[in-house]
Parts: sequence; C-alpha cells; structure tokens
Amino acid sequence: MPQKLYFTVGPSELYPTLPAHIQEALDKKIGTISHRGKAFQDIFKNCVYQLRTLMNIPDTHHIFFLSSATEIWERILQNCVDQKSLHLVNGSFSKRFYEFAVELGKTPEKIQTDFGKGFFAKDIAIPNTCEAICVTQNETSSGVCMPLNEIYLLKQKAPNALLFVDSVSSVPYPDYDYKIVDSVFFSVQKCFGLPAGLGVWIVNEKCIEKANLLLAQKKSIGTYHSLPSLFGKAKDFQTPETPNVWNIFLLGKVAEDMNNKGIQQLRKETDTKAAMLYEYFNSSKNFSIAVSEPVHRSATTIVANTAINASEVNKKLEPYNMVVGSGYSSYKETQIRIANFPALSIEQTEKLIEALKKELQ
Amino acid sequence: MPQKLYFTVGPSELYPTLPAHIQEALDKKIGTISHRGKAFQDIFKNCVYQLRTLMNIPDTHHIFFLSSATEIWERILQNCVDQKSLHLVNGSFSKRFYEFAVELGKTPEKIQTDFGKGFFAKDIAIPNTCEAICVTQNETSSGVCMPLNEIYLLKQKAPNALLFVDSVSSVPYPDYDYKIVDSVFFSVQKCFGLPAGLGVWIVNEKCIEKANLLLAQKKSIGTYHSLPSLFGKAKDFQTPETPNVWNIFLLGKVAEDMNNKGIQQLRKETDTKAAMLYEYFNSSKNFSIAVSEPVHRSATTIVANTAINASEVNKKLEPYNMVVGSGYSSYKETQIRIANFPALSIEQTEKLIEALKKELQ
Repeated sequence: MPQKLYFTVGPSELYPTLPAHIQEALDKKIGTISHRGKAFQDIFKNCVYQLRTLMNIPDTHHIFFLSSATEIWERILQNCVDQKSLHLVNGSFSKRFYEFAVELGKTPEKIQTDFGKGFFAKDIAIPNTCEAICVTQNETSSGVCMPLNEIYLLKQKAPNALLFVDSVSSVPYPDYDYKIVDSVFFSVQKCFGLPAGLGVWIVNEKCIEKANLLLAQKKSIGTYHSLPSLFGKAKDFQTPETPNVWNIFLLGKVAEDMNNKGIQQLRKETDTKAAMLYEYFNSSKNFSIAVSEPVHRSATTIVANTAINASEVNKKLEPYNMVVGSGYSSYKETQIRIANFPALSIEQTEKLIEALKKELQ
Repeated sequence: MPQKLYFTVGPSELYPTLPAHIQEALDKKIGTISHRGKAFQDIFKNCVYQLRTLMNIPDTHHIFFLSSATEIWERILQNCVDQKSLHLVNGSFSKRFYEFAVELGKTPEKIQTDFGKGFFAKDIAIPNTCEAICVTQNETSSGVCMPLNEIYLLKQKAPNALLFVDSVSSVPYPDYDYKIVDSVFFSVQKCFGLPAGLGVWIVNEKCIEKANLLLAQKKSIGTYHSLPSLFGKAKDFQTPETPNVWNIFLLGKVAEDMNNKGIQQLRKETDTKAAMLYEYFNSSKNFSIAVSEPVHRSATTIVANTAINASEVNKKLEPYNMVVGSGYSSYKETQIRIANFPALSIEQTEKLIEALKKELQ
C-alpha cells in the first residue's frame, strides 16, 4: 500500500531528508552519546548556528531547547511575568496561553476577537502595568496570522513590556526584526518537519534580566527550565536535563538543508503555494477562504470553509492517497486546514489542488 | 570504522531491536500522525498496556507521559506538596530533587549520607508534617540503591505521606509492590535503551487527590502537566500537549520485546551480569567496588573505584571499541560507572570484563 501524503497542520509531513538524517543518527549513535560530552556540545552548537543563519538571529538573542511550545508558554509566564501579561486571543492556542497565566496565579488581560478574525495594532490598548505582550503570530487553529509590522507597532505602544511571539506554525517563514521582538518560540513538528518533542525558545537579555529580578524578589521562577538555569547551561552548549538529543541533532540537520536551499527560496516557494491554494479556494464551488481579511490570511496554515463535511473531503482524497487537516474543535467538519510547510513541494500542492478540483470543483 | 559499544549509564546503548522499530515508525509515518487521532490513541494504549504487563502495574495506578524524569521531580512537588517533602539524599540526583523543592518555595527537609552510602529505614525519622517521602531507589551518580523492603518500611513509619520513588536507572528491574508505593517514575534513555526525551510517571489516585486538594485551596499546581490535566487527557489515551509521539511508540515496542523475553528472564540476566561485574571488581588489582555495603550495591549501575584515571581506562578499551562511563562530577577520574541495562548482553559484559582483565588485571 502506498504511503499517504499528509497536508495536516501538525504533526505534519516529515522533511524529505529526514530518513537519511535518522540513519546518520543511528550510525553515529546519537541516541547513546552523553549529553555532557563534546559530541553533544557540537550537536548543540551546530543546531544553534544553523538556526541563527536561517532565521537571521543576532547575538543579542539566545536559543534554548525545551520539550514543546506548550511548555514554553508556562516558562514565559513563570520567568517573565510577575502579575500582568496581555494576550491577543484569536483562536484556541492563544486562548490556552492566556489560561496558563490564570492557572499560574497571575492577573492577565486578554483582548479577544472572533474565530477567524485577526488584530490591528491601532485597536489594541495596552495597560500601563503590562509586563509582557503575548502574540500568536500564526494561529494554527483558525489560519489567522498577524502581520509583522502590526506586531512591531505593539512594541511602540508599550516599549517597556516584553514582546513574546508564538510562531509555532510559521517559523522560519517570518523574517523577524530582533531589535524589536524580545522573544520568539516554536516547536519542530510544524514547518521543520520533525517528529514532535522539542520546543525552541529564542530570548534576549531583557527576558533573562526579568527572571533574575523576580528571583531577587524571592519569587519562584521554576527549577531546571528557569531562564537563568537554561542560560547557565547553554553557555556551555548544554541543557539542564538530559534533553531530546536526537531531535536537536535532526533539527540542526534540517535547518542546514534549508540553509543550503536558501531562506529566500524557501519563502518564495511558500508564497507560491499559498497563492495557489487561496486562488483555488476563492474560485471553488465547495470551498471558501475562512479568513475574510486578506492581510490576516496565514501563508503557512491555509484554512477554508467546506460545504461538504471535512471527513467527506478526506474520503474523496483517499484514492489519491492524500489527507488534509480537519477544522479545529467545533469547526472539525465545517473547515479544512492545509499545511503549507517546507516539507510539501509545489508539485505536491499542485496535485492536491488538482484532486480537489476534480472531486469537488 | 566499527561502532563503539557504550557501557555508559545514560544515555546508553539503544535496545538492539530499536533500528527495526524506527524503520517501522518511518513506514507508518508515526512522526506525522495527529496526536488527537485514533492511531495515536492506539499507540498510547499499547505503550500503557505493555508497561503494565512488564512492571505488573495495577489499575490503581495511572501512567502519564512527560518529557523527562527531571520534569517529573518538578511536577511532583507542584502537585503533591504544599509545604514539606522529605528527601533521602545520597547522590547528585537525589540532591537536585531536594533543591527543586527549595526553588519552588517549599520547606523541604533532607536526610543526607556520604556519597557512596545508602539508607536503612531504621535510621530515618520522618517529620509528622511530611507530605511526601522522596526516595531515589537507584542513584545513577554513586551506584547506590535502596532495597525495596527498606523503602516499604518508610511508608509504615508515615502511612499518610505519599511515597515517591525515583527509579530512573533501574526500572523495570525492581518488582515494586504498588499497594505500598504511591508513585514511581523513570526516563527511557536508561534501562529501556531509547533516545532521551520521554519521562514516565506512574501515580495512584491519592496523588491526584492531593493535587485536587491543593487546587481547591487556590494553590497553583502548574498548567498543562498538572496531575488533573494529565489525568483528564489520559482517560482519552491522549496527552495535554503534542507529545514525543515517536518515543511513546518506541517505548511500547521495546516494552513488548521485553515482555516477549519475559521479565523474570530479564531480571535473571541482570543479576548474572551484576554478579560477574562485582566479582571482577572485587578481585581486580586496579578496581575496587565503590559501594561498601553489599545490600546497597545497585544491580543496574555498577560503580568501581579505579587506581588509574577513568580516562586512561577508556584509552585502554579503545582497541576493543568499548567505552565505560566515567565517575560522576568530582569522581570523574577516580571512579568508573558501568551500565548493566537490558540492552547489553551477558556476552558483551563478559567481553568487557575480559578486556579489562587483560589490560588492567
């Protein structure tokens, strides 16, 4: 039986070079080497170097490895917020980030839009006491993105607040200006096409200073994954605990492949595939684009309303050995979500559109 | 160049069947499937079933998947301790567990022995206010274990305290009595021979009740990895976040292999190899057994003092393509540590002893 091709939004298709890298990991015994030895330090260094190159991350920012973006939500709130974070909520993941702050005993605020809607900075009032602005650049649940210039305007409104950008399902597509953004984070099972189990947290000194300030005030900032603990070990190219060495190795390899292709080419291909998909949904009889405002349409997570049930769409795709993502939660049957990640080629996306056209117009 | 054989204590040798299971994971697209779908639920169920069978875990206890045993230390303290935990500290890892309690703002107590020494229950006074007794059954740093009957006596002394057993580098060798032990936890890069990045937490209802009690008292017990959150999702064979699906799949497969071999056979082989190694160290001119008290000698982590530096020992093993673990921290050069894990066979252990005998007597 031929393998199916998954256009689901995460976990998603593995990056095409991954099986070869996994074989190399087995040959080099990456699962066996000590996380306190030089071989691991070299893996750590390579991964950081490749990510810095790919995403143009300056030395003002550090790169830490955790277990998931979900964990990073918790660590941000523990380390960088005493009382008040502001959350721009426009989907299930940004909402969950806000709820974490409540569960940790903070007094967060949220500004909420309807599902499928995005934000413009001009409409956002930031409280004076706000310590952290938490933005989900790309909502995997709704396919809504926030344009980078709108994110930067938030920082202008509150220069003393730290700006955290959840970029789980868009990195490395957005070209962030790290002079403005204090922290970006993502997980690897989306655009990097790796198995899940690794989160990457990019933070500047201001975030670490805030954690140290809270610590000096005798506030608990957690334990092994506090920012000072992560920073202390990262200086020596290590992690506080035995990490997911395997995935750090694979991430370095995939980022290297992406660097060999070139980030501009990768962005160009992403734009091409996004345009193809949106164009099709715009002209389809069965589908319509879910995000009404054009500037809020994600380039990497493409969501469409569907007249027939999402499960029916996937039944029609069965003879083609293709799978699209269903809608999120209560939109499970009324929307489909399509990953426009680097692991999926222009040709594969063309074939998906052809199949959908043939079956559903 | 032939691959080296690692007798290091973790990460350690991968279980011999692992490359085949990894190939199956690639063929079945385990890195791509949704963690909210039936295929993942089946992987979750199989892993839990195989672990229950292997370790004889009754239905009174639940099995949760986290990212590391280090994380589980933190979650235990957040979820099951309001103020006072008691820590039996006899090495670096048990010490770190105690320090986590301090960092989380608790008021823990510790009872400490010298490095290389163990505990007898008769010497342990447990405070009336103790909520949790935290025992490291097998100290990976020193090679000291605590016999199970001694652990059970602690519970007799303080029946109202929850008993947590760190069994990171010994599971599935110890045959725990789950009528006495409230919680056991481990990570997979030791005796299961998997790549690191997954921690397994076995807990009974009393632990979950304690977390719910703290929550009712408006104490923060964390967010996505609180016990109620883990429990709520596990009932549906899921995890709160996108987990390390890959490793949950592989753990189920390796536990199944171990069940096919039989836990009694696995324990017998462990005993045989341990006896061989201790016998050799007892008669060697260069080595001596590090743990003086026989009942405190670990069966799975065998530590010896070495007259020549540990790095010299490994140089002598180079022509044999074998590597032993160096001592922990300040014992780096004066001790060696040898993994006696299921991934390493009796024959391989014999060859190691032959090589050491030939080179160092």
